[in-house]
Amino acid sequence: MKTIGFACTAANEPLAPFHFERRALRPNDIALEILYCGVCHSDLHWARNDWGWTVFPAIPGHEIVGRVVDAGPAVTRYKIGDHVAVGCMVDSCQHCDQCRKGEEQLCREGNTGTYGGFDRFTRDHTLGGYSKHLVVREEFALRIPAGLDLARAAPLLCAGITTYSPLRTWNVGPGSRVGVVGLGGLGHMAVKLAAGLGAHVTVISRSPGKAEDALALGADALLVSTDADAMAKAANSLDLIIDTVPVKHDLNPYMPLLDVDGTLVIVGQIGLLPEPTTVPLVLGRRRIAGSPIGGIRETQEMLDFCAKKNILPDVEMIAMDQINAAFERLEQSDVRYRFVIDMASLAVGA
Amino acid sequence: MKTIGFACTAANEPLAPFHFERRALRPNDIALEILYCGVCHSDLHWARNDWGWTVFPAIPGHEIVGRVVDAGPAVTRYKIGDHVAVGCMVDSCQHCDQCRKGEEQLCREGNTGTYGGFDRFTRDHTLGGYSKHLVVREEFALRIPAGLDLARAAPLLCAGITTYSPLRTWNVGPGSRVGVVGLGGLGHMAVKLAAGLGAHVTVISRSPGKAEDALALGADALLVSTDADAMAKAANSLDLIIDTVPVKHDLNPYMPLLDVDGTLVIVGQIGLLPEPTTVPLVLGRRRIAGSPIGGIRETQEMLDFCAKKNILPDVEMIAMDQINAAFERLEQSDVRYRFVIDMASLAVGA
Repeated sequence: MKTIGFACTAANEPLAPFHFERRALRPNDIALEILYCGVCHSDLHWARNDWGWTVFPAIPGHEIVGRVVDAGPAVTRYKIGDHVAVGCMVDSCQHCDQCRKGEEQLCREGNTGTYGGFDRFTRDHTLGGYSKHLVVREEFALRIPAGLDLARAAPLLCAGITTYSPLRTWNVGPGSRVGVVGLGGLGHMAVKLAAGLGAHVTVISRSPGKAEDALALGADALLVSTDADAMAKAANSLDLIIDTVPVKHDLNPYMPLLDVDGTLVIVGQIGLLPEPTTVPLVLGRRRIAGSPIGGIRETQEMLDFCAKKNILPDVEMIAMDQINAAFERLEQSDVRYRFVIDMASLAVGA
Repeated sequence: MKTIGFACTAANEPLAPFHFERRALRPNDIALEILYCGVCHSDLHWARNDWGWTVFPAIPGHEIVGRVVDAGPAVTRYKIGDHVAVGCMVDSCQHCDQCRKGEEQLCREGNTGTYGGFDRFTRDHTLGGYSKHLVVREEFALRIPAGLDLARAAPLLCAGITTYSPLRTWNVGPGSRVGVVGLGGLGHMAVKLAAGLGAHVTVISRSPGKAEDALALGADALLVSTDADAMAKAANSLDLIIDTVPVKHDLNPYMPLLDVDGTLVIVGQIGLLPEPTTVPLVLGRRRIAGSPIGGIRETQEMLDFCAKKNILPDVEMIAMDQINAAFERLEQSDVRYRFVIDMASLAVGA
């Protein structure tokens, strides 16, 4: 099908309207009209070729909410008119041990990214959700539960699942003591989700000025990392830290905050960390871990959980043609807490 | 009681005979005549003040095997003539949550080191096992199971428990795939203990020349870390890596060897590590952890396990007055795999 998106044709170019074709439906494919698409920090990295492997023209976007407008003959889960979501992946091998466990994000062959991946049949480069339509196999679409605000749901597909998955992996629930480092798109979801799961949540921030925001999001406390006394008093006080900071940063101040057997999970930074000291690891049997997104089953569980608990990201709605300005603001962390593109602002004939 | 040890009086001085008094027995104390004491790399660090907090005169030694020669009136567990062992700690608060769990090594007040600690009552500086006698509260003595070779058992008290504890924490058993980095005092015990627990054990070494040694110790395979092809083929092949390297070293080559949710546990290096990349952590939900020694209950379990399975370190027996030469060889990793001091070589009247 013919459609339109906003694409980047080179690392130093702004995103601009781009006409292209989505593939003809395979038997198990659905086509969606995209209603909303969240703006993730990864989108910015991808468009600017920060990781060095961007394929141009590039269309970012992997926090997608849409409506089914067509379905292949073998589709059984969805029908035209259903509201569905698509996250960071659109395919995986479906037969390895990880896929069989429902952990398609950890597929042994590598999952197929919603953008920047390569279709497993045609090897065509995948193009993301900054566009009017998407074609996806039904197994990688999520059902939007009734009652979940469509306009705000989009960021759950990356920021939501990326923070929900480690909270579940490390068994967070009532009685858990969770710290959150970095109060951006991922961090603010980590606060809401951890609080929703019943944990005691502490936001750890360099700035005491974040206290009001942290409490408004559902945190129980703010710990100011530049306050040496407060940090010393908070030693051993957390079971899990979700570290959402997307740049190289020093973990050493945070590790002593963990109790014995506690874990700091990195979900933001992809790359190097400054030299860590092993002292808090060895002396307190503490751990540093990483976590990617979640699997399809867990993503559906997260959406259902958010619908039941009325947990939604705080978003700022933008039109498609405001994306370049939004990228600049995102780079300055000038957003509370996620931009969402209202795709009604983009007409196929534009 | 009057006794003799080998002490270091300054960081640049060799160890030399030192006459001193062990404390008079408290009601729950036992006195032991030390028969054997292992030589741990920490002893060398301590004697040379590598960590900057050595109190002189210093007597190292925390891999102690001895015979009970006296007992306080409240002692119930041991009687004169029993063979007992003492490891890295001689006391803890006994009332915190960690002590109540049997994890005295993680005591909230800090455990009292066998050397370099401070007695909880007198605040006297503790002096270790390079000596003829030791006085210790019975709760911190271990029973040497019948049949365990006394002369070789000593290194189990640090090298043994330090590698056994993470193997148990991370549930190693039949079917587990364990890697061991560093084939010294700790590493060779990690191989023997992991194999004894039924794991498939791979020694990871820079040198292909280690193959024979690795297999002789009970490993199933040697992986040569300088062989890029072999390392690439071994990606995702391990559940747990026990990293015993006691100096600053790069973890990045080892992390991709871990399968999803796999953990590299540091038991050697206490200090900085070179900059790690988060890529294998985030993309494979892998973890970096540390682990100290074990608790008293787990240490007893380890001794009983070693007796049952006939697992013993490979040792080179030395006389007390060979300790300075042994330290020099230890620094060059010139020992297979642990020096043990035969304390019969030290007479009280010396």
